[in-house]
Amino acid sequence: MPNLFFGRERKGKIVLDEDETKHLKVVRIEEGETIEVTDGKGMRYACVVEEIRKGETICKILEKDEVERESEDKLIAVIPAGRWERLRLLLEKCVELGVDVLIVHRFKRSQRSYSSKKIFNIVKEASKQCRRFLFPRIEMTENLVEILKENIKYYTLDPSGDSIDKIDFKGSVGIITGPEGGFDKEERSFLREKTTFISLGRKILRFETASILAIGFVALKKRKI
Amino acid sequence: MPNLFFGRERKGKIVLDEDETKHLKVVRIEEGETIEVTDGKGMRYACVVEEIRKGETICKILEKDEVERESEDKLIAVIPAGRWERLRLLLEKCVELGVDVLIVHRFKRSQRSYSSKKIFNIVKEASKQCRRFLFPRIEMTENLVEILKENIKYYTLDPSGDSIDKIDFKGSVGIITGPEGGFDKEERSFLREKTTFISLGRKILRFETASILAIGFVALKKRKI
Repeated sequence: MPNLFFGRERKGKIVLDEDETKHLKVVRIEEGETIEVTDGKGMRYACVVEEIRKGETICKILEKDEVERESEDKLIAVIPAGRWERLRLLLEKCVELGVDVLIVHRFKRSQRSYSSKKIFNIVKEASKQCRRFLFPRIEMTENLVEILKENIKYYTLDPSGDSIDKIDFKGSVGIITGPEGGFDKEERSFLREKTTFISLGRKILRFETASILAIGFVALKKRKI
Repeated sequence: MPNLFFGRERKGKIVLDEDETKHLKVVRIEEGETIEVTDGKGMRYACVVEEIRKGETICKILEKDEVERESEDKLIAVIPAGRWERLRLLLEKCVELGVDVLIVHRFKRSQRSYSSKKIFNIVKEASKQCRRFLFPRIEMTENLVEILKENIKYYTLDPSGDSIDKIDFKGSVGIITGPEGGFDKEERSFLREKTTFISLGRKILRFETASILAIGFVALKKRKI
């Protein structure tokens, strides 16, 4: 599989930023070679590398196609801003499983702070890896009300919920995974009121297994993978 | 959750082996204390620690119950003897997802050798962790014919297969995951003839994502979790 780069259109050219320029050098691509670029918004470009500078690379567009479009039937994943290694794994799996919108929420028991650039970088790398030309949209929220968007049916993963297998996931769907330590009392009663509780079965699964399995299950049902 | 230990019945007592005795010491349990033990065959024992020796621990049985029994509707996972870290992860997830029989197969492109003790240790630790009193049975095979047991319907994960979502997993089911580099030609034609090919969708998922998701999906359908 050829390398896919991330770049932005500027004055009729494609510009790769500093990170992508480093990546270009690592894979030993030189001026004059043809590369494949995406803007992460659904466009696929075939480009010739014109000039590799220190902090950016300028490319000439040879071809340009819109290869992916926003789906009307969205899959939204709300995941906790917990420990970095777990968050990173969840972000990667969500990209791979075709999630359209990624909401990283600071639950009461997952209060870590990450820059949006750090989160975007993981999402970008994972998207390139599995050749998603339309990267998932990323949001970072602190207030629980913000995670609820209009016209979306939300489900919260909780051992007390109905089996995920019995649910017909029609239309746009949001799947909420709580933090490792669980929801706090207020959060839980808010979610109980505003969303439907779903579970994967009687057994307690590890946090990341449950989350990946639930998102994967819905992604499969909604043909996101 | 209290610690669960693995032990074997011997002359009316429970004996913990060297590894479990080390574990006992790590969690600072002393003679006279009560512990919970399983034989991995479905039994749960409440025991008093009588004597902690260098290489083993002798316990007196207070209570004894059969808390899990072999299911008639089995879930079998055939997984490749590939790189240790991946194999380890897959073994752990299979235990967590309620797999009944674990077959570690040496495919042409996954020829690593592991001792059955090394594999058992992972399965034992994962089982204790998620409180499975009946550990999955482990088999290690080299010849593809050996993976096929009687009265079991086998499915092979392959991008050319029908969507897993359309399949009714009745009775005992085996899920075959190939090695990272894919099946070799002969293996593939053997599996095409003897098993049903299933897939998770159009997108190519990473090896471990696909495998965990497929096994998890079937485990969910068969109420193993």
